[in-house]
Amino acid sequence: MRIARTFQTAPAAVPKENTAKYLDSALAAEGFQAPDWLVPDIEDGTAPDMKAEGLENVLDRLEGGVGFAGEIWPRVQWAYDDASLRERGEEEITTLLEAVGEELAGVVVPKVGRVEDVERARDVVARAEADAGLPEGSVELSVIVETAGARLDLREIAQLGAGPDGTDGAGRLAGMIFGPVDYTAELGGRAIDGDRPRWDGLLEALSNEASANGIVAIGGPFDKLFEERAGVRFYNAEAYADQIEREAAVGLDGSWSLYPKQTVQANHVHMPTTRELERDVSKIERFNAAKEEGTGAVTVDGQMVDEATFKNFANTVETVRTIHAKHPGQTGDVYDDALLERALELDTDWHR
Amino acid sequence: MRIARTFQTAPAAVPKENTAKYLDSALAAEGFQAPDWLVPDIEDGTAPDMKAEGLENVLDRLEGGVGFAGEIWPRVQWAYDDASLRERGEEEITTLLEAVGEELAGVVVPKVGRVEDVERARDVVARAEADAGLPEGSVELSVIVETAGARLDLREIAQLGAGPDGTDGAGRLAGMIFGPVDYTAELGGRAIDGDRPRWDGLLEALSNEASANGIVAIGGPFDKLFEERAGVRFYNAEAYADQIEREAAVGLDGSWSLYPKQTVQANHVHMPTTRELERDVSKIERFNAAKEEGTGAVTVDGQMVDEATFKNFANTVETVRTIHAKHPGQTGDVYDDALLERALELDTDWHR
Amino acid sequence: MRIARTFQTAPAAVPKENTAKYLDSALAAEGFQAPDWLVPDIEDGTAPDMKAEGLENVLDRLEGGVGFAGEIWPRVQWAYDDASLRERGEEEITTLLEAVGEELAGVVVPKVGRVEDVERARDVVARAEADAGLPEGSVELSVIVETAGARLDLREIAQLGAGPDGTDGAGRLAGMIFGPVDYTAELGGRAIDGDRPRWDGLLEALSNEASANGIVAIGGPFDKLFEERAGVRFYNAEAYADQIEREAAVGLDGSWSLYPKQTVQANHVHMPTTRELERDVSKIERFNAAKEEGTGAVTVDGQMVDEATFKNFANTVETVRTIHAKHPGQTGDVYDDALLERALELDTDWHR
Repeated sequence: MRIARTFQTAPAAVPKENTAKYLDSALAAEGFQAPDWLVPDIEDGTAPDMKAEGLENVLDRLEGGVGFAGEIWPRVQWAYDDASLRERGEEEITTLLEAVGEELAGVVVPKVGRVEDVERARDVVARAEADAGLPEGSVELSVIVETAGARLDLREIAQLGAGPDGTDGAGRLAGMIFGPVDYTAELGGRAIDGDRPRWDGLLEALSNEASANGIVAIGGPFDKLFEERAGVRFYNAEAYADQIEREAAVGLDGSWSLYPKQTVQANHVHMPTTRELERDVSKIERFNAAKEEGTGAVTVDGQMVDEATFKNFANTVETVRTIHAKHPGQTGDVYDDALLERALELDTDWHR
Repeated sequence: MRIARTFQTAPAAVPKENTAKYLDSALAAEGFQAPDWLVPDIEDGTAPDMKAEGLENVLDRLEGGVGFAGEIWPRVQWAYDDASLRERGEEEITTLLEAVGEELAGVVVPKVGRVEDVERARDVVARAEADAGLPEGSVELSVIVETAGARLDLREIAQLGAGPDGTDGAGRLAGMIFGPVDYTAELGGRAIDGDRPRWDGLLEALSNEASANGIVAIGGPFDKLFEERAGVRFYNAEAYADQIEREAAVGLDGSWSLYPKQTVQANHVHMPTTRELERDVSKIERFNAAKEEGTGAVTVDGQMVDEATFKNFANTVETVRTIHAKHPGQTGDVYDDALLERALELDTDWHR
Repeated sequence: MRIARTFQTAPAAVPKENTAKYLDSALAAEGFQAPDWLVPDIEDGTAPDMKAEGLENVLDRLEGGVGFAGEIWPRVQWAYDDASLRERGEEEITTLLEAVGEELAGVVVPKVGRVEDVERARDVVARAEADAGLPEGSVELSVIVETAGARLDLREIAQLGAGPDGTDGAGRLAGMIFGPVDYTAELGGRAIDGDRPRWDGLLEALSNEASANGIVAIGGPFDKLFEERAGVRFYNAEAYADQIEREAAVGLDGSWSLYPKQTVQANHVHMPTTRELERDVSKIERFNAAKEEGTGAVTVDGQMVDEATFKNFANTVETVRTIHAKHPGQTGDVYDDALLERALELDTDWHR
């Protein structure tokens, strides 16, 4: 069971005394500030003259292992329309996998173009993985969807997430993340009155294509971190919550975070609520009890429970268990002890 | 001329003294409560332990013919990802066509997946039709679009509505209906603040693909039938009207109804208004008069009337005539006698 | 560098003393009233019994050349589902290219259907171009997207804008314009409460597919030119501005204009603002200065400037230069002299 509630980018190097300041604090984040996916950013988050140091910081922090509960996904340089950037990306991927490949869930490749370009990125990862002597398929690929070409081929790109026989999630592509800033610029769009369009049609499609291929879909960054009113500057909690609730509503798996407070909010929004957990735990308990009585087809609340329905209930429980295994402080904070215990002890095996 | 203003589902069996209570009352509905498409629901509307009785009720009520003005479209069990459900669906289709195939316009198949799954359903109907000795193509197929796979292949699925040579409406597929509850669940979407997303992009696509292939497109159910405010519980007429007006605006042919009052509203909204009818009747009258004078190309209100434009006017009139033939009470209620008479007497033949 | 901020249709003939009244005034428009694309309309804007005179007016006004700063794009008759209209369109195209082909940027073909129909229109233009002895590719094609078939095949149609090897903008197709009135009618949509749907999903797709193939995308007409309130009738400036700002936000290149005041507004909205121009001029100036100092990779405002980024800055400047070359009154009106001079004198050559 994979969780990807938060995709938090952290610049790999910044012009401060400790150039890995943000990377260090993300790696050490606790409680709800700990992201599910931490993305050390060697691309746009790191200044051009600090790229080498950024890469060095990532290698240094990850070498020999790091006690990070979530997945680590460095973002490298790449652009479908710039061969020299792709070369740098290939070098970064090769170096990363050689040195710390075992610590990585995968690499994030930005500014991909049409499906052939994504296949090119996929092949680079496969080659680097083999060269580094890592198990085949152990390092995955996620891409930022932020060009007209990637949007045009979204259906074909998402299918790289399925296996050759169509098995959900069996391909190397593990996730698609929306990049609204570059996307709007490439289309020649503009932020009239300061607001970019929401691109609702694209988000619907991202969610659908990801679901159809068993991969993860994540929303774009929200960079107006602070607001000021009547002389007081405050964290822009409402506007970010509005955006990520919209993303959760259309079925995105997680949201992009640029800041610890955003990570707290996105971890909460993309987590089953107490009501959702209570409902599904109770359904499985009643289903299991009815099954033991052995009366053929089992109905719970008037709904026949077949394998597909059961999987939906089990999914909620497994999500909570996965969060609990990685972040017991989070589940302890949100659910009361009795409910959590029921969720952990439940038999969620359909075939028992 | 087909009308499909209302797609009213009625549970095929419910735990009441008369288990066919809702089916019976839908079959006997009068005036604006009579749906254009009545859908006896053997799938989710009927409890698992009443499926057999539900099927029996449908056979019993339809055998020997029934004086129902609209089309009858039973919904059977099916799921693209569950072979045993598909088997039950095939049995239900076979039984229905064998016993009462002549009474049916077609069958509604839910939870279809990618285009291959829709082709599978289509072939099941064709086989059952042949086995029952019914004329080829006499029993049509409609599908509920409620999975990521069906959305992904919407363009290809809709083309099963056209004939092999692309002739509009000549294929076995006659309609596509949106199923927002399962669709939202499959994408992992959630009803934040109690509201599901509206899926505007999907509705645009549904309307477009249906129009391009000469088939019917219908919106999803609205289940908050009642609202309570200041201690009074009332039928939620405004919210349902808002939804179905939005559906009519983007060109859906009809709306899903769960309740007689919803049928009344959807029948009204998807019917030409008095103003629309008056306008198009008047255009045809003036066109016919000008043509009789024989002055070559004919202009009405400054617009040249070619065959395509004429068909648009005639379409409004034919729709009203079809409604009138089936439900004279409805047309009598909405249009004044003089206008209705003009609509019924008009010569709408372009080639005369 | 092409500009297409305004797509202004002018009826080719109207029942007035001077039947070319609107064509004449559009050709003579000055300042911000001069459209980038002027579209003499032989199709829906000209009454059926005046088509011949409309074509004659266009030939008469353009023969021997006309001092018009923008591009001239006559709209001819056509419909994917009407062979006789397509024949008339072919005759009109042939006549236009024979007589005044050198004055035309291209022809606008309405009511195209699926991609095969657009290819048919493209071949008609190619044939007429050859017959008229014009250089190959000198007369381009733009199409109105206003049928279900064109929306269905939008991806394939847009690719006719790229060369056979995929080179952006190298195909004969130069632009796609949205036609909401016919589109809504073909889908069976209706203007409930007087408003048509906005078709946001279609506009997103139009912008994306055009950008992916290096062609122009333009929004649909807005025909409520005037509003009345409390006894005063006034030009509906706000509602049109709202529409075209939305179009600019999602990256459409220009807007449809029916009226000189609309042309003024669309020319303004689709032009870089003073702030945008100042920002990009300044970035190029600082980049050029840094490059001269010769310190390898160049950073401006913390952003590494690669060829792609540089092109974005240069694009703004080139757009302003193109507008200035054609309409010095417009640039003089909007930008202050010092800024404009900097924009005109700048070295925008990446490879120098």
